Order: sequence, then structure tokens, then C-alpha cells
Amino acid sequence: MTSQDYSAVEVIIAKRDGLELTGPQIDWVIDAYTRGMVADEQMAALAMAIVLKGMTATETARWTAAMIASGERMDFSALPRRTADKHSTGGVGDKITLPLAPLVAACGLAVPQLSGRGLGHTGGTLDKLESIPGWQASVSNEQMMRILREVGAVVCAAGDGLAPADKKLYALRDVTGTVESIPLIASSIMSKKIAEGTGALVLDVKVGSGAFMKDATRAAELARTMVVLGSEAGVRTVALLTAMDTPLGLAAGNAVEVAESVQVLAGGGPADVVTLTLALAREMLAAAGLDGVDPADRLADGSAMDVWRRMIRAQGGDPSAPLPVARESHVVAATSSGVLSRLDAYAVGVAAWRLGAGRARKEDPVSAGAGVLMHAKPGDRVVAGQPLLTLLADDPSRFARALAALEGGIEVGGPVDRLPLVLQRISV
Amino acid sequence: MTSQDYSAVEVIIAKRDGLELTGPQIDWVIDAYTRGMVADEQMAALAMAIVLKGMTATETARWTAAMIASGERMDFSALPRRTADKHSTGGVGDKITLPLAPLVAACGLAVPQLSGRGLGHTGGTLDKLESIPGWQASVSNEQMMRILREVGAVVCAAGDGLAPADKKLYALRDVTGTVESIPLIASSIMSKKIAEGTGALVLDVKVGSGAFMKDATRAAELARTMVVLGSEAGVRTVALLTAMDTPLGLAAGNAVEVAESVQVLAGGGPADVVTLTLALAREMLAAAGLDGVDPADRLADGSAMDVWRRMIRAQGGDPSAPLPVARESHVVAATSSGVLSRLDAYAVGVAAWRLGAGRARKEDPVSAGAGVLMHAKPGDRVVAGQPLLTLLADDPSRFARALAALEGGIEVGGPVDRLPLVLQRISV
Repeated sequence: MTSQDYSAVEVIIAKRDGLELTGPQIDWVIDAYTRGMVADEQMAALAMAIVLKGMTATETARWTAAMIASGERMDFSALPRRTADKHSTGGVGDKITLPLAPLVAACGLAVPQLSGRGLGHTGGTLDKLESIPGWQASVSNEQMMRILREVGAVVCAAGDGLAPADKKLYALRDVTGTVESIPLIASSIMSKKIAEGTGALVLDVKVGSGAFMKDATRAAELARTMVVLGSEAGVRTVALLTAMDTPLGLAAGNAVEVAESVQVLAGGGPADVVTLTLALAREMLAAAGLDGVDPADRLADGSAMDVWRRMIRAQGGDPSAPLPVARESHVVAATSSGVLSRLDAYAVGVAAWRLGAGRARKEDPVSAGAGVLMHAKPGDRVVAGQPLLTLLADDPSRFARALAALEGGIEVGGPVDRLPLVLQRISV
Repeated sequence: MTSQDYSAVEVIIAKRDGLELTGPQIDWVIDAYTRGMVADEQMAALAMAIVLKGMTATETARWTAAMIASGERMDFSALPRRTADKHSTGGVGDKITLPLAPLVAACGLAVPQLSGRGLGHTGGTLDKLESIPGWQASVSNEQMMRILREVGAVVCAAGDGLAPADKKLYALRDVTGTVESIPLIASSIMSKKIAEGTGALVLDVKVGSGAFMKDATRAAELARTMVVLGSEAGVRTVALLTAMDTPLGLAAGNAVEVAESVQVLAGGGPADVVTLTLALAREMLAAAGLDGVDPADRLADGSAMDVWRRMIRAQGGDPSAPLPVARESHVVAATSSGVLSRLDAYAVGVAAWRLGAGRARKEDPVSAGAGVLMHAKPGDRVVAGQPLLTLLADDPSRFARALAALEGGIEVGGPVDRLPLVLQRISV
């Protein structure tokens, strides 16, 4: 931090007029905003100027560093294992963290996985795990260290101490139309991940209708920006661009995704979930410098499942308890025979959200049992009358709006035009 | 106002993405902002998007109408005389309102002149008049009507009821780097002038170093935008683009400008002040449809001076009382002989401000006696050692910073490159 004082208006005008902000200007504005000396309306104007005028790589790196400096940094150097973490930009049916964290721990790394809750049509890892009876998302830094030492993997909520500037700025951007900016998105994600102190980081950047970035070019730009930010901060970072045109796996919701994750850990589960879990596990092991371990072996020999059960128990959960089941269900049948050509990720995501699996506002509760089960995926042959989807909800009045969300999202007989599961790998 | 509800984020994103806002969107956002339902940070983000993406003529007209609709409108139709008003975008030594309002009233119009206070290097008409012992800027609507009926001219502060949305938005723009936008400047000025209810309006749009718009092209664009807004709202509006590369007249300050205005009303005064006062008076008379009256006659026959004295008395002032005089003075002498080629308006404006004539924050007091007297203007021959300026202040410690402001603003012997006093006339 510099001791020099700037004027907020001066900094806003510089960016508005397309200038590159200086390092001390960025340090000052982030610090002053965190302390309440730069007002919300001033930061909102600056954020809009950044959305429309951009930031250079140098500015973005400094912005990220300033957000990290606004709070505490975690330190895992005392652990006997190397650390690796994964971050997904969010999708529909994206339960990958659940099998991935224990799998990578079973391979020998420590996985300190700070996760979030769902908002809108994308689900949240913590919401999914909370469907397990007894499981708690909050752990202290000391508990986190102990679980990493004893179990090897922990999935928990980020504490308030990490990058508080990002927390404040993220809430502001949400209400001021300033979310859609690659430098602001990249610095928001990477400030938390770098502050968290992981040694290696694999980014799963989603592309397609169910993703935040619909377009592969923009997704690649975001991925590249984050990889550079991580690498320059000393975190070995690599990104995969992966498909989110159709949901991952055959379940979207909370308890239903936990059940599917347990299938994968048991050696079964849908092919796309298994493939992506293994691809991300291999990247994490490579980034952490742990060669010669095949994660597929750890699925096959049950050691990943063993870590899972200990990981759930370490946070108060009972891995053997029956998962919550929704009170009501409604089957959507195929209306014609042929090949299922489209099952749109966004449509299914909104349906699951409206069934109660997601939330519209941060303070809303979610239903553990609600969601969508899929009985066919694009490319599968279906016959008229066969069940395509089962909608699950606690309240049957929710089915009508969920069905409306699916309108136009399901197609039989058209050309099957799917994205490859992994579109691109981006590293420095 | 529409009864439909919009989301602030939706409106912000539409403008951010370069779309034209709809009429109902504009009505809603201005109304909701005035009522505190759209937050300051949301309006700040929208204002920045408008600065960077612009507004069409249709949007600007609707924005102006919505700001007018946020408050009360005045109505002068009960007066026996036609009304005309003048607005200047602000400059250094711009005391024109002082002789102009009584002069035009002496010609037969009613002049309801709502004026402002100075901020930064430009002076404010109300600050100048307040140097007259006893004079009060605040009058009620009833008093205003009575003075217009009995005297024909009133110069006073705008009441809180006119365009409250503009008042709130203007204060926000000031702290968020969103002042510099032609649609926002034009709608801010014109919403107040249209709500004020004048029948004719003459705009004095300044160009040059001491003006808000340094550049004639931008100034002409602002003028044209305002002329169209006024005309479409039924106010006969015309604009003159006038020079602000060097101060107007030979005095910049408060009491010193009142003294110079009284000279003009007495038939003397500096040529540029007399010329511009008459040019604006002729435009006001023509816009109000009062032909065949020559304002020069009303200066010559003393009737303008007579209105001035009654106008000052009607607001509690004593037009015969001696004006306040600054306690200290400091003479700036010419350092070489030749033609004075430059006397920069901005430099003199900042000097007068630092001497105490202006304010840095709205709540600061101003000194009645402080300011700058000029003893030569660009084009005049000077000899080394002769006084060029006299600086006036109550506190001699102010001279050093005022002299620093003048550094580089005075030039002898270079090419004289002055703007013509009236650059352009803009009407529909």
C-alpha cells in the first residue's frame, strides 16, 4: 500500500478516458473502497468504466494483488503434502468437485477446496453437500488444516477474511450491471484462489448455453487471463475449456447430484462425469508435480470412496445416511421417436432452479430433494412415450413453471450438434 | 409516469450494451431514483454508461421531460409581459446577467433569472450580487411574481421544488466522474430552465480555456442539443457560442464585477462586456417576439439603471451603499514591453478563486472583496513595469498561490490569437 492519497474522481476519470491506471492508483482505490473511504457510487462508476474500457494485463494483475492485500492469506506450507485446488466457472449438473476432491486426495495431494453456493440457474457445491444429513460447510482455519492433514481433502465455505474487497465489490457489481467484464471476473476468482494459498490450481471454464460465457472465444480469453494471473502470483495454473451446452451427468439438483457423485466414486456413474473428473484430476496432479499416479486406479480400488467417507464425517456428515427425497415427481415423456438431438443446459438449469434446487436471492433456502433426473442424453435414441426427464419437487405447484422453462430446450430428430467435452487446454 | 416496473440492472445493462432506452424505462428510472428506489450506485453506473455510450436525441428529450416531471413547474402566463431568460455555461468575469436582466426588463420583457453559485474557477451570479449590502438571493414564488410584475426582472436562487431529480443527479455526477456528457449536461440545464416556465431562452455557451467546453465543436454540439430540447418543449431557444479564452471585462471576483456592471448600466464599462450584453439582449428580445426596441437606447437613457436599482432594492439590497473592498492588494507588473498577447481566462479564474472570490466546496464561504482587476487586455500595448493586474484578497497569505496560478497565463510579445467575441449563433 502506498501512503499517497488520490481522489476517487481522478481515478474514475482516468479510466473513463481510457487511460491505464497506475499501480498506486489501483492500490489506493481498492484499499479506500474496502475501508469505506471510496463510496459505493464511486466504485460503481469506476466498475462501469472498466467494463466499457477494459484493463490491461498489468492493471488486472495489480487489481488482483490489491484485493488479496485487503485481507488475510492462508498458508499450507506446513502440510506434508503438496496442495492443489480446482475452480469451475459454474454450470448445470456440475458436481465434479464432489468426486474430484477425495479422488485427488487419494492420489496423494492435499485439496483445500473453498466453494460457493448456487445463484440463479447454476448449482452450488456447498448446497449439494448440505443435503447430506449433518454435514456443515463452515470450518475454522484450524479445523481446515487438521482435516487436510488427516483426510487430505476439505470442501468448505471461504471465511470472511479472504479478499474482503472482492466480497464487497462482487455484491456491488451484482446490482449495478457490471458483472460482465473479463478483468473483473478474472480478478475476483483469482484473488480468492491466490489468497487461499494453494500451490496448484486447475480452472474448469465452462462454454455453452448453461455457462456464464456462452461463447468459446470469450471463455478462452477469461481462461487465459486467469492462467496468467495465477502463474504470475506463483500458483501453477492451467485451464480446461469444457462443454456446458447440455448438463453434466444425469442429475441436476442437490441430493441427486450427491448420489451420482457417490456412483462415480464407487466406480460407476455417467461417462461424461467420470471422464471430466479424471481429466481434471490428471491436470491437478501434473500441476502439483505428482507424476506416475493414475487417478483411475484410485476410483477402481475404492480409496477415493474411502477418502470421501472420511471427508464427509470430518465435517459432521453421515455418508451412510439416506439422502433426502423430494415429495413429488413429474415425468416428462418423449413426444416422438428418434435421436435426442438437444437437451439444453440452460433450460434444465432453470427448471431445476424453479423446482427449488436453486435460489433467486442469496438469502433464499434451497430444497435438498428437488431437481431434474435425465433418462437420456443428446445422441441417445428414444421412443415416443418413454420417460425423458423426471422432475422432483417438494411442492407440486412448481412443476408448471419448470415445464415452461423446458419449452424449446428438448429436441428429438434434429441434427446432434454437441460440443466436445474438453474443447481446449490453456496454460502459460 | 408509467405504472410498469423495471429492474434497475436491466436498464443499466441496456445502456451499457449500447441500446436506446425506451421512454417508459427512462420515466421509471428517473422517478425511482428521485424516490430512492434506484440506489446511488445504480444511477452512478447508468450515468457512466451514458457518458461512454451516449443518448440519442429522443432519449435526451425524454430524460429531460422526466426530470421536469420530478418536481413543480412555474407558470408566468398571468404576467402582462412576455418572459425571457438567459443561461451561461459559466466563465471568468462573466457578470453579464447583472446588466442584462434589468436592461431587457427596461425594454419591456419580464426576466425571471434563476441563477447559481460559483464552484471552482468560474464565478456565480448570486455570489456577486450578495456583495451588495442587504441583498438576499432567496425569494418565495409569490415574491418572485410580485417583483416581475412591479420591476420586471428578478435574479434569485432556484427553489428546491424545480427538477429535484436533477439536483440529486447533479450532486452524484460531481463525485463520480460523470459530469462530461453532452446529453447529461444539456438535460440538466434545460430541465431547470423549462420547469422555470420562461417563454424564450438565450443560451450563452462559452468556448475556450476558461470555459467548461474548451473546444468549439463540442460546445456547438452542446448548444445544438439544448436548442432542440428547448424548442421541442415550446420554449423559443437560441444559443450564442462566445469567447472565454480571456476573461470578460476588466474585473473577476464579486464586488468588483458588480462595480463593473454598474459602469455598463451607466453607459460606460469595458467594450466586450457592453457588446456581449447588447448581443444577448437583442437575442432575448427577438426570441420573445419584441421587435423594434434597441437595447442600446435603454442603456443610454438611464432606464436600465433605473430597473437595476429597483431590482436590487426589491431583494433588500441598497444600490447606493459602498461595496466591500478587500483588505490587501498586490500589483503584478509587466516584465517586458510589447503587445499583451495572452491573458488566459483559466489562469485568471483560478487566481481569483484562490484569492477567495470562489469556493472549492459548495459549503465554503466566499470573500466579497477578493478578485482580480485587469489593467490591460490581449491586443493592448504595455511597457515594462506598468501594472498588468491588481490582486485583491482579505488575507495576504493568499497572494503566493494566486501568483502560482497565473504562471504561464500572461504573455507579452507573442502572436495575438484571440477568439472572436461571438463565434457562432445556433437556432433551430
